[in-house]
Formats: sequence, C-alpha cells, structure tokens
Amino acid sequence: MTLPEIRAYLQKHKIDAYFLPRNNMFLEEDILPEENLILALTGFSGSAASLVICQDKTYLFTDGRYELQSKMETDPKEVEIICSSADFPFVWLQNHFENGKFSLMYNPWLVSAGTIAKFCAMFSQAKLINDDKGLIKLAASAKKAHVFKLSEEYAGISAEEKISEIIPMIKQNGCDAYLLTSANEASWLTNLRSDALPDSPILRAYALIKKDGSVILFADNTDDANILPLSKLEKNLKEVKKGKLGVDKKNLPQMICEIFGEKNLVDIGDIIRNKQIIKNEVELQGYIEAHKQDAVAMIKFLYWLDNNYKGKTELDIVAKVDACRAQDDKFLCKSFDTIAATGSNGAIVHYHPSESTNKVLERNSVLLLDSGGHYQNGTTDITRTIALGLPKSQIIDANTIVLKAHIALASTVFPKGTTGVALDAICRKELWQENMDFKHGTGHGVGFILNVHEAPRISTQAKNSHFAANMVTSIEPGYYKENDFGIRIENLYYTKECKNSNLLKFEVLTLVPLDKRLINKYLLDEGEINWVNVYHQKVWETMSPYLDNKHKEWLEDACAPL
Amino acid sequence: MTLPEIRAYLQKHKIDAYFLPRNNMFLEEDILPEENLILALTGFSGSAASLVICQDKTYLFTDGRYELQSKMETDPKEVEIICSSADFPFVWLQNHFENGKFSLMYNPWLVSAGTIAKFCAMFSQAKLINDDKGLIKLAASAKKAHVFKLSEEYAGISAEEKISEIIPMIKQNGCDAYLLTSANEASWLTNLRSDALPDSPILRAYALIKKDGSVILFADNTDDANILPLSKLEKNLKEVKKGKLGVDKKNLPQMICEIFGEKNLVDIGDIIRNKQIIKNEVELQGYIEAHKQDAVAMIKFLYWLDNNYKGKTELDIVAKVDACRAQDDKFLCKSFDTIAATGSNGAIVHYHPSESTNKVLERNSVLLLDSGGHYQNGTTDITRTIALGLPKSQIIDANTIVLKAHIALASTVFPKGTTGVALDAICRKELWQENMDFKHGTGHGVGFILNVHEAPRISTQAKNSHFAANMVTSIEPGYYKENDFGIRIENLYYTKECKNSNLLKFEVLTLVPLDKRLINKYLLDEGEINWVNVYHQKVWETMSPYLDNKHKEWLEDACAPL
Repeated sequence: MTLPEIRAYLQKHKIDAYFLPRNNMFLEEDILPEENLILALTGFSGSAASLVICQDKTYLFTDGRYELQSKMETDPKEVEIICSSADFPFVWLQNHFENGKFSLMYNPWLVSAGTIAKFCAMFSQAKLINDDKGLIKLAASAKKAHVFKLSEEYAGISAEEKISEIIPMIKQNGCDAYLLTSANEASWLTNLRSDALPDSPILRAYALIKKDGSVILFADNTDDANILPLSKLEKNLKEVKKGKLGVDKKNLPQMICEIFGEKNLVDIGDIIRNKQIIKNEVELQGYIEAHKQDAVAMIKFLYWLDNNYKGKTELDIVAKVDACRAQDDKFLCKSFDTIAATGSNGAIVHYHPSESTNKVLERNSVLLLDSGGHYQNGTTDITRTIALGLPKSQIIDANTIVLKAHIALASTVFPKGTTGVALDAICRKELWQENMDFKHGTGHGVGFILNVHEAPRISTQAKNSHFAANMVTSIEPGYYKENDFGIRIENLYYTKECKNSNLLKFEVLTLVPLDKRLINKYLLDEGEINWVNVYHQKVWETMSPYLDNKHKEWLEDACAPL
Repeated sequence: MTLPEIRAYLQKHKIDAYFLPRNNMFLEEDILPEENLILALTGFSGSAASLVICQDKTYLFTDGRYELQSKMETDPKEVEIICSSADFPFVWLQNHFENGKFSLMYNPWLVSAGTIAKFCAMFSQAKLINDDKGLIKLAASAKKAHVFKLSEEYAGISAEEKISEIIPMIKQNGCDAYLLTSANEASWLTNLRSDALPDSPILRAYALIKKDGSVILFADNTDDANILPLSKLEKNLKEVKKGKLGVDKKNLPQMICEIFGEKNLVDIGDIIRNKQIIKNEVELQGYIEAHKQDAVAMIKFLYWLDNNYKGKTELDIVAKVDACRAQDDKFLCKSFDTIAATGSNGAIVHYHPSESTNKVLERNSVLLLDSGGHYQNGTTDITRTIALGLPKSQIIDANTIVLKAHIALASTVFPKGTTGVALDAICRKELWQENMDFKHGTGHGVGFILNVHEAPRISTQAKNSHFAANMVTSIEPGYYKENDFGIRIENLYYTKECKNSNLLKFEVLTLVPLDKRLINKYLLDEGEINWVNVYHQKVWETMSPYLDNKHKEWLEDACAPL
C-alpha cells in the first residue's frame, strides 16, 4: 500500500490516524531494509523515525541527526517532517487533536505494551484500533539465517551460567517463566549469533526462559533445528498460562499481551540488561584485542588516504576502509553501515553515501569517516575527521573545540552511579562556550558482537543510564555546519574503578591517531595538549609492533607530540 | 503521644507501621517548630525527614546533609537513622516487608495524593489505614499571623494580572476551579505575605481559584477578615463539586481527594510554578537592590569579624550578622535560620548553633557562615567561608577546589532547557577530579520574599528542573571533612540570555568578597584567577559608594587582585 492508499482507507473507515514506528517485532533499532516500512512508504532511510499518517497528510517524526537527510529523501507534498525527540508523536497528537477524541490504528507487533499504556493514560477519550487485517503488513526477510555459537574463549561465560543467574530473578518475582523479546539480549544470554543482518550478528529470536532453567528460542528462517518457528510461540505461551509470565512491558510488543492475556502477565522490567552491559573480563580483553586489529586496518587506510585521496569518491572510501578491515582473520562483518562524508555531506549527521549522493572528496576540506567492525573477539566503532589538503582555519578551530569536548569527558573521573545526562553536560560544556552544539547523543554503549548501539547512553535524555565499572561506551561529540562541513571525534572507552576511591574513569580502547593537521594547538590548554600527546604515545607504543616499515613511519609522524 | 506509646498502639491494633513525613498541610519545607511532629517525636530538627514507626522500632529517613546531626539528636535505642534520598522509605518498605503484605497508617493531611497513588501502585497487597482518629495529631500555631500586601512597586505585577494569566489554563483543562495548595505559590499569586513563620514571609493559605477570576483564600489564625478559616474549605469545595476541580496531585494532600471525591478531580499539575519562578523585571531589579543592602550588612560584619573574632562563639556570630542585616530600613526578616559553624561543626552540613553545641571560634581554622535576609524588595542567601588566624594548607587547598567548582558553573553558558542534573555535573566535576564531593544540592531557586528554597534545583536528582531566563538560583558547592572542617561558597545568580544565541548565562547578584586568605592561587588557572578578579572588581565598584572610610578601606584590600 502507498501513503495515498492508506489515507484513502482511513478516510473511508473514518479512522483519524495510523501510528507506525520504525520497528520490527523486536522493537530494536537494527532492522533489515526490507522490514523498514517507513522506508518503503516515505523513502526515509534514517534509523530513528515514526509516522503518523492522517487522512490528509503524513507526518514523519525523527531527530536532529536526520533533519537534513529526511528532507532530502521524502516528498514534501506528502510528508511533513517534524524534528524532535522520539517521544514527540504523543505530544504532537495532543496538540493536533485538541479535544482528545480521535481514533488511532496501529500494528500490535510494532508497538510496545508500555507505549500503549502510556497512550491510554494520556488519551482517555481516544480510541485505539488494532490493525489485525494487516492494512500495513509486516515484511519478513526470505533469507535463511545461519546460526552459530560464540566460543567460550571469547564469550567468557557459558550460556548455562548466564541463565542460572537469571533464574533467581524470575522466581523472586513469583513467575514461572520470562519472555525475553530483545534479540540483543537473547543473543547475549545464549551466546548465539547469526548472519541475518548485514552489520549486527544478533540472532533475531525471542527467548522463553522457564524457571527450571530451560530456554526455548523462537525465530523464523534459521538453519538451527533447535529454534522453533514463531508460529509455535502462542502454543508455548499458553502452556505457561496456568502460571505467571514475567515480561518487560517497555520492550514487549502489545501483541504478546493480546496472546497471553493481561491477567497473568507480570511486568518485572528488563532483568537481563544490567548484566549484559557490564562486560566480563574475557569480553573486555576481547574488546582490547579487537581494537588493535581495528587500528591496524584504520592506520593502513589512513596511510592510503593521505597518498591517494585525490579524485576518490565517498563510495571509494567506503570500499577501501571496509576492505582494510576485511583483511583481519577474525573479522566477521561491519558493525554498521560505513559513513564517509566529504564537505557539506559531513553536515548530514548520519549520512551514508549512495550512488545518488556520492561526491568526489573535496580538496581543502575534511572527510568524516565513521565505521567499525565485529570481530570474533569484540566490536569496534570509531569516527575520525581527516584533513584533505589544507582545510580553512574555521574547520581546524571547530575540530579543536570538538576535541576539547572529547577530552573533557574522556579525562574526567566521576562517582559510580553518575547519569548519562551528567556526563553529557561535561562534554557539551566545551562546545556551549563557543556557541556550538550537536544534535545527537554524546555516547552509547557498544554491544559485544551484538548491536553496536546499546545501553548505557550519554545524552541530554539519558537520565536513567547510571554508570558502573566495565561498561563499554563511545564518546563522540561533533559539530555540523549546514552546507559546509561536519566534524565528529569518536573513541570507545571502558569504565574502570579508580584506585582507593569510589570513582570511575574512562580507559581508552580505540588506538588510531587523531589528525594533528586539524588541531590548533593554541586553543588547547596544557592539560589538553598533554592528553593528546599521552594518547598518541600509547597508540604508537601499542600499534607500531604490528606494522610494516612504511606504515610505522607514517604512524610515528602521526603520533609525534603536538 | 511518644514513640513507645505509638508502637504499643500499633502492636495492639496489629498495624505494621505508621508513615509520617515532615510536613504540614502545605506539604512544603518551611514549617513551624511546633508543627514539626518528627522533632517532637524523635528530637531530630533537620529540614528533610520522614519516619516509619514500626511495632518494634522507629526508622528515620533523612539525607546526607543530616548524617551527623541526626545521629546526635536522636536516641539510638529508639530510632535507627537511614541516610538516603527522600524517596527511600518506599524502597525500604519493599525490602522490609518482603511479601508486600503489610498495613500502613498515615495522616491524609500530611501525605500527597501523588504519594498515595505511588504507594498503591508499588504495594498492591498492602493495606492503607487512614489515621482519622488522630493517633498523631497535627499541631497548629496559636499565634495570630499578620497579613500584608506587597506593594506593586516591588511585586511588579498585580495579583489580578497574575490571576488573569492562570484562568485560561484552568479553562483549557475543562475545570471550573483550581485548588492551589502550595502556600509559596498562593502568596506569589495574591501578592500577600504574612509573619506566621520566623524566616519565610509566606501567607500559609490554600487558594481556590475559580474560572471567573475570583479567588478565595483559606487559612486559620490570620488578621485578614477576607481570608476564610480552613473549616470553610469543605463547604466551598462542595460548591465546586458539580463541576471539575483542577489540582496538582503531586502536592495535594490526600485529604482533599477524600473531601472532594476522586471523580471530578482533574490532575492538571502545577500550573503556577513555571510562571512564579520566572522573575519579572521589577522583581529582578529588587533582587539586585536587595543584594546591595545585604552586601553592606555582610561587609560590615566581615570587617567586624576580622577585628573581633577572638573569644567569640558561634552564637555571638549569629547575633552579630543578624544585627548587621537588621540595620537596613527595608529588612523584613532572616530568610532562614543563620548557620555559623566553626571547626568540626562546619562539617555538619546544615548545622545551626544552639546553647548545647555552641563553640568558641577555633583559631587557625575557618568559620562557615550561611545566612540571608528578606527585604521589602527581595531575598538573599549567601555562604562565605572565612579564615580565622592561619588555617592549615589542607583547608586552603580544599577551599580553592570548591571555588574552582563554583567558578566552573558560574562562568558556563548553556542552552535553554538544560536540566539541573547537567549543571550539577559541570560544578561537581572539579571536585571529583580531587576525589572530593559534597552530599547536598549544588543550587536552588530562591523565592521572591517567599520560601528561600524553591524550584529550579541544581542537583544529581534535578532531572525535571529545566532552566530558562530570569530564574534566580544559588550556586553553592562545598566540602566537608568529618570532625575537622567544612567549606561552602554560595552566591546567588539570575539566568540571562546571551546576545545573539540561544544560550543562557549566570549573572551574579551577591556582592561580597571571597576570602582571599583561603585561595591558593597556584591551583587556579588563568581563567579562574581572572574570574575572581573581575568579580572582586565588580564588588568594589558597586559597593564602595555605600561604605564609610574604614569599611571602604577594608573592602579595597579584600577586593585587590589575586
């Protein structure tokens, strides 16, 4: 169905609006292009979106990262873009239907029970209509996914041990089982992965964890005979139905409430995440090693770029950096679609080059390169902004301010339990002083060969992300000047306890030099200069043994003190 | 009744616990000592407290500021102190009554409807028992309060104009009236004040605002014949009862729900606060002038202290600083009970000297002095830490780090809408780097001749305080070394828009020198030294015209560059 057809249906059936978030049944960010109903309907390919289709018009809600891109990808006659936060459609509905009397259609696989509850609390006079006829049909991938087990050598803890730690929480809450609907967490719990998605090795399955320790996985289209098809989910849930089923309503498709019934459903929250985002010692060692492998690839790429950028396009860059990573024996896949943006494309925060937007690298400007890999031993995510020729001083100064913001957060110590909102301000403050800012989060947790974006978050919204030791997170402030250039400096870090105190610090994982050609030393104070020099010294010492002479020479120069 | 008598009652009637927050019917912080049931029952005089009286024992919940004081004031055989956050009793109940089956008695005048709703959501199996027999009786003051009107010369806006701005919000929410149960806000709305409390000139009244613009005030024991006694509240609410009554359930005593009935009660939140905490231009000018008057008093006091501290006690200090303020023609009353703490008393965060704790000022230590006044034109609140003799270098360095934290926040610019959590981290970061911290908020809004503590807040908890222009707030980081010394540096500021940007900055109100004898210049960077010098230059230029020669000479010295 097209948007005009859906609107005609709404008109005919006197339904005021259709609410469609960018979800599949796992309610997570990573979905296949063929599952992306918003892409199919509007052309918008960004990773944060929801639609409200009204009888006369369609409203697309996204966030600041996609302000420019969303306008470029959609038809302004059909789609009005509203850039705000993910929560915004509800506030908008409140203003749009002032008397609160309206009907809203939705697909219960794509909307969480938590969202439905919030909707009902906000709009006591509105009417919800379940799209059970499939006006907007879920699209599935035809590809059969290969399922594989992470070796314990890398996972550190067996699935059995992880499950045994979860069971007491299920029992304590008086439940007979727990339905885990987060694919990211089900993959972590079972140590299983798959090749279903191009850049996230998660196994896209629901896990029904019974209090006796047995786990049944549900997923379609896999090569693992132990995984039941989704059509068996209903029957298995009904077997639990005599007892109580624990769930996390915030992440539970409303459909499960309809299948299981509300009565014996107990909302015990996400009992996995707080274990999953604290990395064990083996995982941490894996991240450290994977970042060395990744640094070899990035250093080779940067060396190549310095000597070969003239006449190359953004897509050439993507091909080259991806090829450099693929040389590593342990490389599995990219951790997300590589972003290579030159000149004004850099100002489109999460721009991905395509045949239609592809640009030849601009001289005397910068290349913004955000990329990463999943390896057998860990996951990486790095952004470097790289000088091409002689960028103007405005770019150099902006890059230096972004670097100051990066250092401010990377070098701070902070008490256990500090929130992502607090850390965010420590970083952004450096930009605010120069009347600069950026419209995306400052950092995100990075899954262990799972989704590259997970908890905790560092952002103005992350009031519920409380930091603890052994979390892996990015720090990635940026600055974007529309129609001109974009800058982002991203390293991964893990949190570590300081000696003899209750404080945490960030220990760096990423080992790739920052582009000194983009640093105006006179804008840095002594402590900041020292931070850059100590970082580069560490990069040099750790990475030089892995490089041949020509790359070693390049690195020595790149890592020389400011 | 005593705690053992209450416990005996609970045992006899098989009631598991009695929940008693430190409230009167206005659910605000400022209460009279004779209304303080927790003080009467336990001896604890702090401003943050709630009690859970169980059959065998009493649990007192307070926060980190009162960790030491609460232990000193209560009997450890009867009362167990639990230092955490204000929300904690519920979490504690959850752990204490593990199966969730327990009965809890409470007085519905002292507990908000919001708290009761939260309780019911958390404890579906618990039983609430309304203390309608008055096991713990509310205590009222016998004193008749004098009610007076703020002149528009100082208030800036008439009560009629303020009310006319509130009416549309009442109508938009489909209500016929709004019951305002915050005395702070009712005082602001009506421009009325009273002398009921010793250090907060609020009129302690409920305001019933009808959609026709008429306002009925309810309060006992006033000299204003237009104010109805509280006994008339029920009848007047019943007259509204045909229609809908708007309330803010978070701040509404549960008793009102029981009088009015839940059915026609509409929770439309606090519709006054966001107007009240944005000061108008006349109010802001009043704050500015009042701070000059206050600075004259403080400078005279500091001059006196330098020459006379030997042999003086903390209570002598309180008497002297209070007397200095009282000399001003526009002085109304203190804005809170003066804190003067020397040596180890300074480490008790909200210590107030009394006959039993009073100490002679320690030589070679510091005096922590936190005081303020209400004037006809505004309200002040200032803390200075003052050298007595030659304090050890540990104190000087600690004071310098606290100063760095103060400057970090005072000199930052930040986008409109930034939360108090974010601002808190910018301040505290400077302390974290030295493994220091403090267990109280970083700042609070300051009412205009109202409660000295109001919204917005700057703290690790203040995720819902969003900053806008023209708010008046304190910045007051500190450091407290148990059994040794205490430091706090507090100025008031108002938020102001930066030119040509969406950013806010803090504009200083307080004009009293910082003690340079406690500043180790070598711990400050150039920007921080410059901040101190610019501040002192402003103090000197503004204040010197108001002083006689001996005070002027003292100030010139105090304000000379670092």
